[in-house]
Amino acid sequence: MDRRSFLKTTGVAAGATAASAVAAPAIAQGVKELKLVMAWPKGFPGLGTAPERFARRFEAATEGRYKIRIYGGGELVPALKGLDAVQEGTADMYHSAEYYYQGKTPAFSFFAAVPFGFRPDEMDAWIHHGGGQELWDELSADFNVKPFLCGNTGSQMAGWFNKEITSAEDFKGLKMRIPGLGGDVIRALGGSPVTLAGAEILPALQSGTIDATEWVGPYNDLAFGFYKVVKNYYYPGFHEPGAALGLGVNRQLYESMSDADKAALQACAVAENNIDLAEFNAKNAQALNTLVNEHGVNLHEMPDEVFVQASKAAKDVLADAANADAITKKVYDSYSAFRKIALEWSKLSDQSYMQKRALAEG
Amino acid sequence: MDRRSFLKTTGVAAGATAASAVAAPAIAQGVKELKLVMAWPKGFPGLGTAPERFARRFEAATEGRYKIRIYGGGELVPALKGLDAVQEGTADMYHSAEYYYQGKTPAFSFFAAVPFGFRPDEMDAWIHHGGGQELWDELSADFNVKPFLCGNTGSQMAGWFNKEITSAEDFKGLKMRIPGLGGDVIRALGGSPVTLAGAEILPALQSGTIDATEWVGPYNDLAFGFYKVVKNYYYPGFHEPGAALGLGVNRQLYESMSDADKAALQACAVAENNIDLAEFNAKNAQALNTLVNEHGVNLHEMPDEVFVQASKAAKDVLADAANADAITKKVYDSYSAFRKIALEWSKLSDQSYMQKRALAEG
Repeated sequence: MDRRSFLKTTGVAAGATAASAVAAPAIAQGVKELKLVMAWPKGFPGLGTAPERFARRFEAATEGRYKIRIYGGGELVPALKGLDAVQEGTADMYHSAEYYYQGKTPAFSFFAAVPFGFRPDEMDAWIHHGGGQELWDELSADFNVKPFLCGNTGSQMAGWFNKEITSAEDFKGLKMRIPGLGGDVIRALGGSPVTLAGAEILPALQSGTIDATEWVGPYNDLAFGFYKVVKNYYYPGFHEPGAALGLGVNRQLYESMSDADKAALQACAVAENNIDLAEFNAKNAQALNTLVNEHGVNLHEMPDEVFVQASKAAKDVLADAANADAITKKVYDSYSAFRKIALEWSKLSDQSYMQKRALAEG
Repeated sequence: MDRRSFLKTTGVAAGATAASAVAAPAIAQGVKELKLVMAWPKGFPGLGTAPERFARRFEAATEGRYKIRIYGGGELVPALKGLDAVQEGTADMYHSAEYYYQGKTPAFSFFAAVPFGFRPDEMDAWIHHGGGQELWDELSADFNVKPFLCGNTGSQMAGWFNKEITSAEDFKGLKMRIPGLGGDVIRALGGSPVTLAGAEILPALQSGTIDATEWVGPYNDLAFGFYKVVKNYYYPGFHEPGAALGLGVNRQLYESMSDADKAALQACAVAENNIDLAEFNAKNAQALNTLVNEHGVNLHEMPDEVFVQASKAAKDVLADAANADAITKKVYDSYSAFRKIALEWSKLSDQSYMQKRALAEG
C-alpha cells in the first residue's frame, strides 16, 4: 500500500529510485483481484461489517498485493451459495455461518452453532487448541476450501413471542421462525419451525403467519424493528449460544499464496474474530438499553423448565445428526469430548464469577 | 520470508531475475532486529507462549523484514520493567500485564484487570468498540508506547487456602499472596496481602509464611505444584476476572513503520488476543480435570457472602484509585459507564445461558 515508506524502513537509501523503478510496475501488474461473497447484505450490523474490516486489513497488511471486492448476498451468487461459489471458483472467498451448509453434511453446523453448544470462548478454545481447526480443515478440503474463524455473533436471544411463555407446553402449536437444528428442537417440543429470510420476518409477524421469531440479538433485532409488532422479548436462547462466522478461501488460491500472505490472511481473519465479537457485545449492550428504555420492550427470562425439556430434545437432535455420515460422527465426537471438560471449567470460571458478581451488586 | 513465491504471485515472470537482483540485497540489509522483553519466563504457559506466537506470525506476515528476539523476564531488563525499557528504547516491545505499571499511574490497571471488573469478552468490547483503545493510546503515549491487546488469562481462580473459608470473617488475619488492587480488597476484609514473585510462592506455603495464595488458574497452578502443599482450591476469583495481556511498542518504531507493517502488527497482536485466551481456556479445562482426578484437590465454591463484602470493598478501592490523577479518573469514568450497560447484556446472554445450560444438564 504504502510502498515508499516500506522502502524507507527497509533501509534502501541511494538505491531506492532504481529499485522502485524496477519493482513498482511489477507490483502494480501483480495485484490480485479477489471476490468475496457474503451470506448477508453489505454493511449489515456485525455480519457485513466483519468481512469489510477483514478485507481492508488484509489489503493493507499485504501492501496492496490483493484487492478484495465484496459482494452482498445475492449480488454475485445467492446468499447461501458461498461455499458452492468458492468450491467452483466463481468467488475466491466467502463469509458466512457454516450451518448454512448443513444440507451438504451436518458436520458444518458444529463450526457455527448447535443447540446447547459452545459459547464463543469455548468455540475458540476447541478450534485453536482442541483439535477443531484440524477437523474443519479436513471437512472443508472436500469442498476445496480452507476455513478460518472470522467473527462471532455472541450469545443470541431466545426471541420475540406474541404471548408469554410459562412452560414448555406453550411451544405446542407455536409457529416460530427458527431455522436449522434449533428448529428441530422446537419441533420436538411440539412447535412448527418456519424458515424465513430476514426481510420476510417482520411482515410475517404483522400478518400473524408466525407467532414468534428468533433472529440474533438486540443490535440486529432493533434494526429490524420487531419491537413495533411484538413486545415480549425472551432470554437466553439455547439454539445459538454464539454463532461463529467463517471465512472460506478457495484452496488453490490459498495454496498459491506465499508464506507471508498466508500468515497475514490467518492473522487478519482471527483478529476479526476478536473484533467482531466485541462489536456484537458492545452494540448489543447499547441496543438492549434502547429497546427497554425507549421502546417499552418487556424482557422475560425463559423458564428453567423450557431449558430442561429443550436440552433433552437437543441431545437427541444432535445424536441423530451425528449419524448422518462419517465426518459428522468424527466432528461430533471431538466436539462432545471437548465440551465435557470445557463446561466444567466454564462453570467454575466465567459462569460462577458472573453469577456472584451479579448477586453481590444486587 | 518466502520471497520467491512472493515474486511469483505478484506476477513478475520475465522480470523476476532482474527485480530480485536489485531488491534482494536491499531487503537483506533492511531486516530490522527488534527486542521484545517479557514480564514472564520464556515459554511460560499461556503467558510466554503468546509473544512467541505473535512474533513468529509477525515475522512471517512481514516477509522477514523484522526479526524479533524475545527476552524472558530478567534477561535484558527486570521482569516488571518492560514499560521503562520500551520508553527509553532499551527494548522495542514488551509483553506484560498493564497492572504491573500501576505505580506510575493506577490508570494502567484498567487495561489488565481490576477486582469485579470485565471478563475477557467485556474487556475486548470496551477496547475495540467502547472507546477503551483511544484512552489506552492516550495514556501510553505519555510513556512513548503504542499498546495493543495481545492475550488474556481468562477468569482466574480465587486461590489455594490452608483452611476452609466459610465467611468473610475467615479473611481476618489471613496472610495471602495477592498483589495489586485485589490485595487492597483483601486488606479491607482484614487480611494481610503479600506480594511474592511466582517462584517464591510454593516455599512460602510450605514454610507457613503465607496461609493462602492466588496465582492464575489450573493450567499455571498445576505447573507450580501448589496441590502438593494445600488441597483447598476455591473458585471463582473476584480479583482478576480475566487479565488482559498487553503488547507495548516503542512509539517511534511504530510511527516509522509502513502502513502495511502497522496493519500486520495490529492483526498479529489482536489475533493472538484470541488464540491466547483459547489456550488458557483449553488448558485450564484439562488441568482442572488432572488436579481433581489425579491429585485429589478439593474444589470449593467461595461463599456468596464473601463476594458481597468483597464487592463493597472493591467499590471503595477503585473509587480511591480513580482519584489518583486526571488520566485515571478519565479511564475509570469510561470503564464504569461501559461496565454499567455491558453487565446488563452479560446477565441476559452468557450468564443466563450458562446457568440454564448447567441447570438443564444436572
